[in-house]
Amino acid sequence: MKKIAIDAMGGDFAPNAIVKGAVQAASLLPDDYQIVLIGKKDEMLNCLHDLEYPASKIEMVFATDVIEMHEHPTRAFSQKPNSSIGVGFKLLKEGQVQAFCSAGNTGAMMVGSLFTLRTVGNLQRPPIVGYFPLKNGGYSLMLDIGANADCKPEVLMQFAELGSLYGKFALNMENPKVGLLNIGHEEEKGNTTAQATFQLLKNNKKINFVGNIEGRDLFDGLADIIVTDGFTGNILYKMGEALYEYSATKNINDPLINKMNYEVVGGSPIIGVNGNVIVGHGISTPLAIKNMILLAQKQIESKVTEKIKEVFNN
Amino acid sequence: MKKIAIDAMGGDFAPNAIVKGAVQAASLLPDDYQIVLIGKKDEMLNCLHDLEYPASKIEMVFATDVIEMHEHPTRAFSQKPNSSIGVGFKLLKEGQVQAFCSAGNTGAMMVGSLFTLRTVGNLQRPPIVGYFPLKNGGYSLMLDIGANADCKPEVLMQFAELGSLYGKFALNMENPKVGLLNIGHEEEKGNTTAQATFQLLKNNKKINFVGNIEGRDLFDGLADIIVTDGFTGNILYKMGEALYEYSATKNINDPLINKMNYEVVGGSPIIGVNGNVIVGHGISTPLAIKNMILLAQKQIESKVTEKIKEVFNN
Repeated sequence: MKKIAIDAMGGDFAPNAIVKGAVQAASLLPDDYQIVLIGKKDEMLNCLHDLEYPASKIEMVFATDVIEMHEHPTRAFSQKPNSSIGVGFKLLKEGQVQAFCSAGNTGAMMVGSLFTLRTVGNLQRPPIVGYFPLKNGGYSLMLDIGANADCKPEVLMQFAELGSLYGKFALNMENPKVGLLNIGHEEEKGNTTAQATFQLLKNNKKINFVGNIEGRDLFDGLADIIVTDGFTGNILYKMGEALYEYSATKNINDPLINKMNYEVVGGSPIIGVNGNVIVGHGISTPLAIKNMILLAQKQIESKVTEKIKEVFNN
Repeated sequence: MKKIAIDAMGGDFAPNAIVKGAVQAASLLPDDYQIVLIGKKDEMLNCLHDLEYPASKIEMVFATDVIEMHEHPTRAFSQKPNSSIGVGFKLLKEGQVQAFCSAGNTGAMMVGSLFTLRTVGNLQRPPIVGYFPLKNGGYSLMLDIGANADCKPEVLMQFAELGSLYGKFALNMENPKVGLLNIGHEEEKGNTTAQATFQLLKNNKKINFVGNIEGRDLFDGLADIIVTDGFTGNILYKMGEALYEYSATKNINDPLINKMNYEVVGGSPIIGVNGNVIVGHGISTPLAIKNMILLAQKQIESKVTEKIKEVFNN
């Protein structure tokens, strides 16, 4: 039995939206999967009360505490071991669950990833991977989209390697093309970090580097893996989300713009750590939670985390 | 008589698109304005041959040389004093024209701005201002959108001051709200540059600082002036342009998205230098050129460049 844990207390509409989304996912998961709801007993039971679901597919683990959205991540994580996030990482670390998802405090999810699971091999910083929609109907993977605001060239190079492995194993991309997000295609363009990173990527034999990618190329699929720091990546990604929200109010119904809706993919994996961790948007709806859980299932099936471990530990 | 010079040789579709756009603008400019086309004699005459226009409104100044799009800006600018860009800056510096516009090599336009015109007062780096469309139908001003890939906090603070003056005098914004582009609203969020810049902006009495602006806020008008470095600003701005281009192919006709079309504003001013300089997109069409010239006219009328000079030289 494989188990996907979900933080029932994380997110602006928790626990209701989380429990509803988990129930929706439950009926879609294969028979050998179970969802583990983590959170306060009474609140979870209240939410489950009126819902119909296959009881065998949803398990509960109780957590007495909650890390709120705006708490200081490191402090809250260490001071609240019985929070839903604290318990989730404990279960994941012990192998009692195969993935842990939360729409709660992203910083605390990073802290748990770093200090409970730890990074693979010599990886300095784990990135958050964003699914960035393309005109051709597919996605490119953008990393980092928010975990690391300042990134040295070496860190960006590791993102390129990690992203390539994620694309290859989780999304079956063949020899994924790596692009460096920059302000010109020429190799001397960009800020000092981008210039130095270009040289590292160009000389890296582990990746298929195709050069710089500009803002105007983002929807064209010139690259499968888009390497950038968590500052620029986060702002771009959120601008896309804002654009979708605006379009929805204007009844624009377009396949590319619709996929800028965070609910479609549902979550963003934190990769390069010893476990499957997925973070969701604070405003996650049941639909988003359902899709985040299905993303976790695919990630477990793909064994991408084990592959990344294997490569980075050698 | 006020004169607006335009580089007839600059841009992927020069000189044809430039001359056509200039002719379109000519009939829209007030009587006391003239357009000065700068470029190779035969090529300009060829383009003008089949067009009808009020002869008194278009003047020609001949330049024997051209700085190509991918030439090294500093080298080309110094080695080609008789290029259309070189001649344009000479005319502007001498006061023979009141503005100079080009859709050619942006780097060379920056070099001319820096070394021929020079920056005002103690300004370290002149930014390029992007008109960023808002849901409410207006624009916020984003700076920098590409001239300065690396920006220290002090430089970003000067952008905030410059942008405020530009908003106030060129766009009649009352007490323009300044926002710092960042990855969270809280003051401790962001990369080290953003964190340090926040403190400078917070303590700056010359501006109306409203705090951090996230990617998801960009269309909401929380700020009139959006401060960012030319790396992030450029990528965002170009992503907007790409989105418009995509939308046009899908027959999406929406007022906000339509204004992401670079042709609507037509150009982006380089501000904080001793003269009115506007740069255009390399792919500029006649429509874009026409609007760039009309933007130059408005900028001249507003006397914003003189106001900025006045404030920064004191």
